[in-house]
Amino acid sequence: MEEIMKNKKYIDINADVGESFGVYKLGNDEELMKYITSCSIACGFHAGDPCVMRKTIELAKKHNVAIGVHPGFPDLLGFGRRRVEITAQETKDYVTYQIGALKAFAEASGMKLQHVKPHGKFWHLAAAEEPVGRALVEAILETDPKMAFFGRRGYATDIAREKGLRVAMEIGADMQYRPDLEGVLSSDYKKKETNPREAAERILRILDEGRVQAIDGSYVDIKVDTVLVHGDTPNAIEVVSAVRESLTKAGYEIRAFGRTA
Amino acid sequence: MEEIMKNKKYIDINADVGESFGVYKLGNDEELMKYITSCSIACGFHAGDPCVMRKTIELAKKHNVAIGVHPGFPDLLGFGRRRVEITAQETKDYVTYQIGALKAFAEASGMKLQHVKPHGKFWHLAAAEEPVGRALVEAILETDPKMAFFGRRGYATDIAREKGLRVAMEIGADMQYRPDLEGVLSSDYKKKETNPREAAERILRILDEGRVQAIDGSYVDIKVDTVLVHGDTPNAIEVVSAVRESLTKAGYEIRAFGRTA
Amino acid sequence: MEEIMKNKKYIDINADVGESFGVYKLGNDEELMKYITSCSIACGFHAGDPCVMRKTIELAKKHNVAIGVHPGFPDLLGFGRRRVEITAQETKDYVTYQIGALKAFAEASGMKLQHVKPHGKFWHLAAAEEPVGRALVEAILETDPKMAFFGRRGYATDIAREKGLRVAMEIGADMQYRPDLEGVLSSDYKKKETNPREAAERILRILDEGRVQAIDGSYVDIKVDTVLVHGDTPNAIEVVSAVRESLTKAGYEIRAFGRTA
Amino acid sequence: MEEIMKNKKYIDINADVGESFGVYKLGNDEELMKYITSCSIACGFHAGDPCVMRKTIELAKKHNVAIGVHPGFPDLLGFGRRRVEITAQETKDYVTYQIGALKAFAEASGMKLQHVKPHGKFWHLAAAEEPVGRALVEAILETDPKMAFFGRRGYATDIAREKGLRVAMEIGADMQYRPDLEGVLSSDYKKKETNPREAAERILRILDEGRVQAIDGSYVDIKVDTVLVHGDTPNAIEVVSAVRESLTKAGYEIRAFGRTA
Repeated sequence: MEEIMKNKKYIDINADVGESFGVYKLGNDEELMKYITSCSIACGFHAGDPCVMRKTIELAKKHNVAIGVHPGFPDLLGFGRRRVEITAQETKDYVTYQIGALKAFAEASGMKLQHVKPHGKFWHLAAAEEPVGRALVEAILETDPKMAFFGRRGYATDIAREKGLRVAMEIGADMQYRPDLEGVLSSDYKKKETNPREAAERILRILDEGRVQAIDGSYVDIKVDTVLVHGDTPNAIEVVSAVRESLTKAGYEIRAFGRTA
Repeated sequence: MEEIMKNKKYIDINADVGESFGVYKLGNDEELMKYITSCSIACGFHAGDPCVMRKTIELAKKHNVAIGVHPGFPDLLGFGRRRVEITAQETKDYVTYQIGALKAFAEASGMKLQHVKPHGKFWHLAAAEEPVGRALVEAILETDPKMAFFGRRGYATDIAREKGLRVAMEIGADMQYRPDLEGVLSSDYKKKETNPREAAERILRILDEGRVQAIDGSYVDIKVDTVLVHGDTPNAIEVVSAVRESLTKAGYEIRAFGRTA
Repeated sequence: MEEIMKNKKYIDINADVGESFGVYKLGNDEELMKYITSCSIACGFHAGDPCVMRKTIELAKKHNVAIGVHPGFPDLLGFGRRRVEITAQETKDYVTYQIGALKAFAEASGMKLQHVKPHGKFWHLAAAEEPVGRALVEAILETDPKMAFFGRRGYATDIAREKGLRVAMEIGADMQYRPDLEGVLSSDYKKKETNPREAAERILRILDEGRVQAIDGSYVDIKVDTVLVHGDTPNAIEVVSAVRESLTKAGYEIRAFGRTA
Repeated sequence: MEEIMKNKKYIDINADVGESFGVYKLGNDEELMKYITSCSIACGFHAGDPCVMRKTIELAKKHNVAIGVHPGFPDLLGFGRRRVEITAQETKDYVTYQIGALKAFAEASGMKLQHVKPHGKFWHLAAAEEPVGRALVEAILETDPKMAFFGRRGYATDIAREKGLRVAMEIGADMQYRPDLEGVLSSDYKKKETNPREAAERILRILDEGRVQAIDGSYVDIKVDTVLVHGDTPNAIEVVSAVRESLTKAGYEIRAFGRTA
């Protein structure tokens, strides 16, 4: 029995959701939820609003998708993609606020928060700058240390591990990487189709080999815990569907990171 | 012993705090906290911001003041004093969001939320309109039914009691009342001094007699649980100091509503 | 020559545009601009942002479409569709602000503002409530009285005429009307298709007969100056295309209201 | 006569005003306006709101104070003091928007805009970074090139001059300077008193000598056109009063920059 468990390969598929705001609709969460196992929900700072947060949690619950917090900079106009030069204390306070806001909806729906994953420019900076990564981890520790941290390798993941948080390393189904695992996304990625079969094969190779080929041709070791898919690209659903099918066929069990033993 | 307990008279003194925003300072919370036993903290919709929320909770903790949520309409420009015609569902979602945001800071500080008290126009409407009062109570029930409801007599207090929530009836040290206990506050109350001695005597009379004289001369029964003082009037500290001293002299023990047996 | 002019029938076709915000896209302005002669541009209060405003004006210029101000309540979260209970002075100040903001972009592009048309709930209230209509007209008078007022019959149109402003009465290609010409729009109109041929025939009949049949079956006289089309319904482009073609065939010259002699 | 004119020494005294927002009051504009000749008015992005803008212009008009635009980053929470990493195009659009908004109130009051002076972090960056300075100047050129540019020596002043704008160099009555004329303001300057007599003497010396002593002891040439005073420090009024009196006694005529021949 234990042997079987050991040989069992698990993988999580996550996506950013709940990014609509008021009448503005972004992404196709209804469809996307059918294919993913974890989702990161915007909390009203860079996207999302209280009604969208509630509805997104209801949707995740219906599809048995684990939920996480997707905090961003306080800049709806810039969708959290441009830096707002906040202090470490402000960073911590803004994250605490956003975690709390989402947690209230989660608890009202009888769900638990599985993880925190920073959004956009904050995602970059949490990995690239020590004070940002530390402030983010501290906010998690002070609000709910049972939450895992989702992100790319960098300061936040290092500090999170050091402080005892579970960390899920992610790889993007339609992203390229620099040797330091900084993700590279073309500015018009939302308009471009990704070849579903190629994306699926690439992800499978990365998981099986435990390494990813960076844009400079070099190979970087990575033990992937969760595959990030986008929900707002032209053929997003085809891509996630192909990725999921390919991983399943290869013997991976697709399940939320937090539900993995 | 039990006899003594029975005869013991308790009263809570509450104030709205944490209404600063960014560089904008409102009220004198540092001083006010020395005299009150409960405070209602703004949550970023009509006033307050994440940093102010954290600092206000730290201040309350230092002074052993019980904390509550002070949700308002999403209208910083109008300070929550003008109606935004939101639906019952939106009302519930906005309150849930604000409760959660404050709760995260409370838990990070090792404090519990004692109560919820709506702010400004929302305070009026929660009493005056059934759907508003009901939505507010539902948000409390779904997030943390151990919180009490602070407010004036009306739909929200009735529904709160019906649903099993503890309810604290409040009376304002510098407010006049209509026969339906709707508070009457002159639009320039922030600029006017209140006679501290008169306010103190009036509050004592209301508590002892269990009734308040309305602006039409009639008397309305009220079992006061908490006295509201303002922190942003010219002589606010003198007023709360006089009220507190007068109540103490008359044998009332000043303690937070939630700490009363 | 003069006889020909007299017999010439003119009609304006207008639409609300520039309602995108940051990454959020609303409507299909690029396509819509090909069919309309006037557009009302959101100014950042209920929708729109500085970049969207500039781009929308550039687009209108390219298609020779006259531009107008589309002021709304300061409520991005509610898209200006719910009342914010502001005073008459606030109404005037908020409109003045929005007119000025758009005017700067218009002047930078070498264009003039043709009109002001209130948005959403503000559109309703400007017609239904005297202080709202008056405040709106006063803002126009104090900023640029050469601008026309676009709206439905009510206080704002009456006061605008009384004060010497030009007024354009509009009728919606996909709207029903009450006998007081209050527009009736189903809450899910954005998801419903409108039969293009029926809409085109109906509009032609209203223009030719100078009256519209209200939802109670009664007929209401109306001298239509501009036809409102929506840009965000499923088959919006088909509808405006059919309306435009039908009116052209019937001998109407489609031109901006402000360019009519 | 011409000789007298030539010998006449003029100086402008300016302050940032209109920084209140909703119920939040900042500064003491009513008093300050009695001593200054130019003011820069916030436009709702980092501070200020439509009602505050209107009232501030009315106040300036009453005291015959020339008015200018004080654009800032879209960050009310940070009061425009922290960088928001916007593009050059966004910078230009945000400034255009703010100029237009204020211009509408100015025109409604029969006043003209004298100048543009960037606020806070934007003030620093307009001098320190070429794209920021250029975008700002372009916005002025496209909206109203009769406006002067107020700022510290740097990219914006250089580009402004190159493009034919009038430029007013300013020096702060309570600020220290680095050798590159970057202003140095202690983070708690709002709580500190400035010695009025010392400030007045220092400013007079700077004007008379045409140079300022930087914090490293070196002297930097500067031809001062306008003296900046703060309105929100503890003894702000005493300082500006002393500065004004000292300059007047020394033979300077205190008048708005734009009214200087």
